[in-house]
Amino acid sequence: MTNATCEHCDVHEPHEAHEVHEIHETHDQQGDRDQHRECDQHAAGGYIEDQKRIIARLSRIEGQIRGIKQMAQDGEYCIDILTQISAANSALKSVALILLDDHLNHCVRQAAAEGGDVADDKLDEASAAIARLVRS
Amino acid sequence: MTNATCEHCDVHEPHEAHEVHEIHETHDQQGDRDQHRECDQHAAGGYIEDQKRIIARLSRIEGQIRGIKQMAQDGEYCIDILTQISAANSALKSVALILLDDHLNHCVRQAAAEGGDVADDKLDEASAAIARLVRS
Amino acid sequence: MTNATCEHCDVHEPHEAHEVHEIHETHDQQGDRDQHRECDQHAAGGYIEDQKRIIARLSRIEGQIRGIKQMAQDGEYCIDILTQISAANSALKSVALILLDDHLNHCVRQAAAEGGDVADDKLDEASAAIARLVRS
Amino acid sequence: MTNATCEHCDVHEPHEAHEVHEIHETHDQQGDRDQHRECDQHAAGGYIEDQKRIIARLSRIEGQIRGIKQMAQDGEYCIDILTQISAANSALKSVALILLDDHLNHCVRQAAAEGGDVADDKLDEASAAIARLVRS
Repeated sequence: MTNATCEHCDVHEPHEAHEVHEIHETHDQQGDRDQHRECDQHAAGGYIEDQKRIIARLSRIEGQIRGIKQMAQDGEYCIDILTQISAANSALKSVALILLDDHLNHCVRQAAAEGGDVADDKLDEASAAIARLVRS
Repeated sequence: MTNATCEHCDVHEPHEAHEVHEIHETHDQQGDRDQHRECDQHAAGGYIEDQKRIIARLSRIEGQIRGIKQMAQDGEYCIDILTQISAANSALKSVALILLDDHLNHCVRQAAAEGGDVADDKLDEASAAIARLVRS
Repeated sequence: MTNATCEHCDVHEPHEAHEVHEIHETHDQQGDRDQHRECDQHAAGGYIEDQKRIIARLSRIEGQIRGIKQMAQDGEYCIDILTQISAANSALKSVALILLDDHLNHCVRQAAAEGGDVADDKLDEASAAIARLVRS
Repeated sequence: MTNATCEHCDVHEPHEAHEVHEIHETHDQQGDRDQHRECDQHAAGGYIEDQKRIIARLSRIEGQIRGIKQMAQDGEYCIDILTQISAANSALKSVALILLDDHLNHCVRQAAAEGGDVADDKLDEASAAIARLVRS
């Protein structure tokens, strides 16, 4: 069942991360608001094409942070640690920008095509996420 | 020997992270430029009072990043991942600001008191680190 | 003529900022790519409801910058100038986030509803703008 | 009188931005805390060598903001306005970094050389300003 296209949201790609069947049951059981969220969660699909790249980058960042912690444990020079923190910050922002781009191109695009409340919710949610990122 | 004050840089605190004896040998063996760097590295002392707090925070951030990677592996919803990335970004900046504050209060302060080239080098280095952080 | 709805892009609101007639001429004269751009430019409509608020905020920021310049001319204290610059930076980001929200809710939403190349172009453009803002 | 060196703070450069005589009167009239502030304010000297460059950059940024406001008044395209806002943001940060560098190299350096409470106050103040900038 996993590779079928969701009958509710016909735009997005088939995917492997969720049991589609399960999701359809959820569609039946839950209210409108949750359906929208399920629908896109399902479309984690948002970043499914970039998933491997995103995971690889996050692994590298995890390693960077572990390295920075080790530097602090070894009492290494403040400035060298700061340099690594700035680099990790930039790397995190890059991952965030890939995710955002995927989110706009899949989840938001699909919701905008559906229109109505689904579109309103998705767009408000995206704006709020962008604001958090810009101010972080 | 570890708790003695370095005879070369009499301002900073005694510290545990390095073998003072070893460092003094380095002082004897290396040129002026390296002495300055050793001296402050030694004064990892810059952040020695905050070392535990900094390591604890970096451990938490490492856990956050691992959690974010797991979310991406589980195909979780883009926006939820973005929210966690923004939080990790802010947390990293906070650690950087603690380190910078310690660096200014120990390494830069001591170098400024020494004056001359040592002061020039330390101040240029601090400015460059701040610029990298602001732009990261 | 100014308050009429553009016959080309029937989604957006009528607006005052452009001569619709003029724009339609442009529609006739230019290729597809430019039409899309015209169409949304026209839909400055993106932020037309917030236009007054945005202009008011930009006026205030302009005044802030003029004040900061005066502080520098008067030789005022570095830290006081830095505080004002940080405040102006935050204020600029807030205006940018209002504009982005409007852009997503109007231009991007409308383009996503149209689908195809129009949607692709608008979404790529929005992602690039977000990246510039996040890294600025 | 303007070009004389302040007898109170013998480290910094002579300057033109303040009436030294006036400042010395203030020194006599006010308590310790204010003396320190006066002293460095006086050492707006912090950025006196870069003052023209800083004012020129702020003039350019003021013009940028005025241009952005005009774009909003003309109903120009959201993305074009966002691009200009990101550019103004970067330009503001650059001015802030020049000011910070000057502040560290003059005010903070001088205070650190004096030591004691003066140094403590200046370093805390600088750290707080850096934190505001990093988070703005």
